[in-house]
Amino acid sequence: MAEPRRTGRWRTGQQNKQRIIEVAREHFKQGYEKATVRGIATDAGVDVAMVYYFFDNKEGLFNAAVIDIPEHPLHQLVELLDDEGPDGIGTRLVRRFVERWDEDDTFEPLLTVWRSATVHPLARKLLHDTLAGPVADRVAAEFGVSDAGLRVELVASHLMGLAFARYQLRIEPMASAGVDELVAWVGPTVQHYLTGPTPLGSEA
Amino acid sequence: MAEPRRTGRWRTGQQNKQRIIEVAREHFKQGYEKATVRGIATDAGVDVAMVYYFFDNKEGLFNAAVIDIPEHPLHQLVELLDDEGPDGIGTRLVRRFVERWDEDDTFEPLLTVWRSATVHPLARKLLHDTLAGPVADRVAAEFGVSDAGLRVELVASHLMGLAFARYQLRIEPMASAGVDELVAWVGPTVQHYLTGPTPLGSEA
Repeated sequence: MAEPRRTGRWRTGQQNKQRIIEVAREHFKQGYEKATVRGIATDAGVDVAMVYYFFDNKEGLFNAAVIDIPEHPLHQLVELLDDEGPDGIGTRLVRRFVERWDEDDTFEPLLTVWRSATVHPLARKLLHDTLAGPVADRVAAEFGVSDAGLRVELVASHLMGLAFARYQLRIEPMASAGVDELVAWVGPTVQHYLTGPTPLGSEA
Repeated sequence: MAEPRRTGRWRTGQQNKQRIIEVAREHFKQGYEKATVRGIATDAGVDVAMVYYFFDNKEGLFNAAVIDIPEHPLHQLVELLDDEGPDGIGTRLVRRFVERWDEDDTFEPLLTVWRSATVHPLARKLLHDTLAGPVADRVAAEFGVSDAGLRVELVASHLMGLAFARYQLRIEPMASAGVDELVAWVGPTVQHYLTGPTPLGSEA
């Protein structure tokens, strides 16, 4: 093999790290399996050792580039609990989620999460172990519910479906509905999913 | 151009029609624009005139192959209203939707709807004009609500998000949750979206 290109050596460490994340996000769009650390390093113009230095391995890179995006509704849920506490969390989460995505010109980062996870069991496991699982633990502790795993997935899937219809399908009237209107409809649902009594009386 | 192949001439009309639909579904996965009537006819082994005979034009073929699938939650909603009336529609819709997809080994038909519509304005318009719009009219008449367009899209996007998490991402515990548990959580939400009072007091 030829000596790896070092075209990025004039960048700072943080700049290189950010560049690797951006390139990795593009590569993971094709699915977890198809992306390679070497290919990402090449396209980012860095030595492959630098990728391992920052992210340990491919799983760590996937976490940083795809799962650990602040726009994901479950990250937003934890941020809101940390910053402002649990009161009215349903309404606040829907508002933050919609306002955040209304500002953006692309829905791609969230689509990348889905695309990557649907094709590879390890990506699916990482999505659970590093995002949905810990958030469920937090929700269980915060609201004293024992079926928090399903609760957070109901919330995440509802908001992702809504976002897909609004930003990707752009079907009317969903695409042009006001933020207040969406919050008024969906906020109470999210509140119920997170804090309401378990239906059927079972604490499965 | 060479004479079109006629390798399908020993099939009956219904068999040819079904074959065209199956091939069209594959072609439309790449997006509405990329699919061509001629390419679909060739892969289906029929004369292009036969496609026009059955489906009039590309839009008609798209409707038949992609939008008019009985598994779409909005088609199921209308079926349930027709067959059994409006009582408890939320619970019944969630149950039918989940039971139907639990039986299947692929989530592809619903993904095709999304893939096709996200890339082409005409596909999006067809999805609205031939599916979401008429179903909204039906819901408005059935339940006396005036913001039925947003209501049916809230229902459809919630169920599609749930199905995506359960059948495509297959994230746990959503993937293994019992039908009764999902119905108990989501049924009342769908009921509220379809028949509850408009929040904010506005009849937008």
